[in-house]
Amino acid sequence: MTDEDADPVMEATYRALCSHGYASLTMQDIADETDLSKAALHYHYDSKHGLLVSFLDYLYAEFTGRVRDPGGDGPTERLERFIEDVLVPPEPDEDERVAFGTAMLELKAQAPYDEDVRERMERFDRFLHGQARALVADGIAAGEFRAVDPDDTARFLVTALDGAGTKRVSVGRDTDCTRRMLHSYVETYLLAGEGEDAVTASGDGDSEAEPPREVTE
Amino acid sequence: MTDEDADPVMEATYRALCSHGYASLTMQDIADETDLSKAALHYHYDSKHGLLVSFLDYLYAEFTGRVRDPGGDGPTERLERFIEDVLVPPEPDEDERVAFGTAMLELKAQAPYDEDVRERMERFDRFLHGQARALVADGIAAGEFRAVDPDDTARFLVTALDGAGTKRVSVGRDTDCTRRMLHSYVETYLLAGEGEDAVTASGDGDSEAEPPREVTE
Repeated sequence: MTDEDADPVMEATYRALCSHGYASLTMQDIADETDLSKAALHYHYDSKHGLLVSFLDYLYAEFTGRVRDPGGDGPTERLERFIEDVLVPPEPDEDERVAFGTAMLELKAQAPYDEDVRERMERFDRFLHGQARALVADGIAAGEFRAVDPDDTARFLVTALDGAGTKRVSVGRDTDCTRRMLHSYVETYLLAGEGEDAVTASGDGDSEAEPPREVTE
Repeated sequence: MTDEDADPVMEATYRALCSHGYASLTMQDIADETDLSKAALHYHYDSKHGLLVSFLDYLYAEFTGRVRDPGGDGPTERLERFIEDVLVPPEPDEDERVAFGTAMLELKAQAPYDEDVRERMERFDRFLHGQARALVADGIAAGEFRAVDPDDTARFLVTALDGAGTKRVSVGRDTDCTRRMLHSYVETYLLAGEGEDAVTASGDGDSEAEPPREVTE
């Protein structure tokens, strides 16, 4: 996250989360990433909890600003760009994406026990679902997409994007694999017309687990 | 998790994870769920880390045993039952599913920093992907599914199931919503229907000329 009007404390929180994760993060860790003392930090934020909730709001503003208008010509390109924007966060390299994604996963695990965190997670979810639904609906209206249910399709897409973020952390799946998978979903599932028939086999090589059984005809 | 030949320490670990989560879990918490003293527990497992890695192996055995054969008549029903088996863990109620899912999310967030945890997560992922791919390939071979790429489709399905588990924790999405969404995916995306939208195994020369990659290996 780099922005001209970035908040130094929020940027420090971001760096501290990447370095320390959420569970063991202290106010001192965050202060260490700023010019402020821990006491000065406490003057603005009375607890780690309060600071992290503010950080989630900051993140929401950054995220929605970045993802709101994917640009692109026409619904298909716009949806593909939306997926790309969500899939590839602005972190400069994959290590940092994993580090930050890991901290976010820890924060998601707080949601059942922390109403403030839960509210923020729901807000992200509503925003993403609304964006995806609008993009799918645009594509249907323009005749580029099949007449799928925009609500369910958007829900599915956002769920898969969430799962992709988790897989990045838990099994180290790289972005290329996820991108290809989502691209294939859009091509195969959404596109109206000849795209549906043009399914090309494009396995990714890690097929060591359990070959298909009864496909012998 | 209830099983006649269940391991008492593993069952205690399960209960302790549901009650305390992963981050703050102690060996004492686990001992408190058994008849053993903390010292006796340490005799068998020298650390919380070792115990949790054993727990992940125990969980893998339970999970694969439960999910391996979904039963059902024909590929569509088998795939739907597989999704249901993964989607609805054996926990008796939604509160417990959320509690356990939360602890699992915390454990997934350990993967980048803990090779043992990472290996277990990859093993779950390979198993699920292999199962899903086989079920999709079966459906294509039987002419019930369109000629999608089984590898990508399985990857997408497993990613969405993972995302559904995360959403259960982070935004409290209920199982019915996820079930409906996945059912819609199978119905709309996979099923070879009537008319020009469908690619049936017997009706389209192109799709027969390009079978799923795994089938030929």
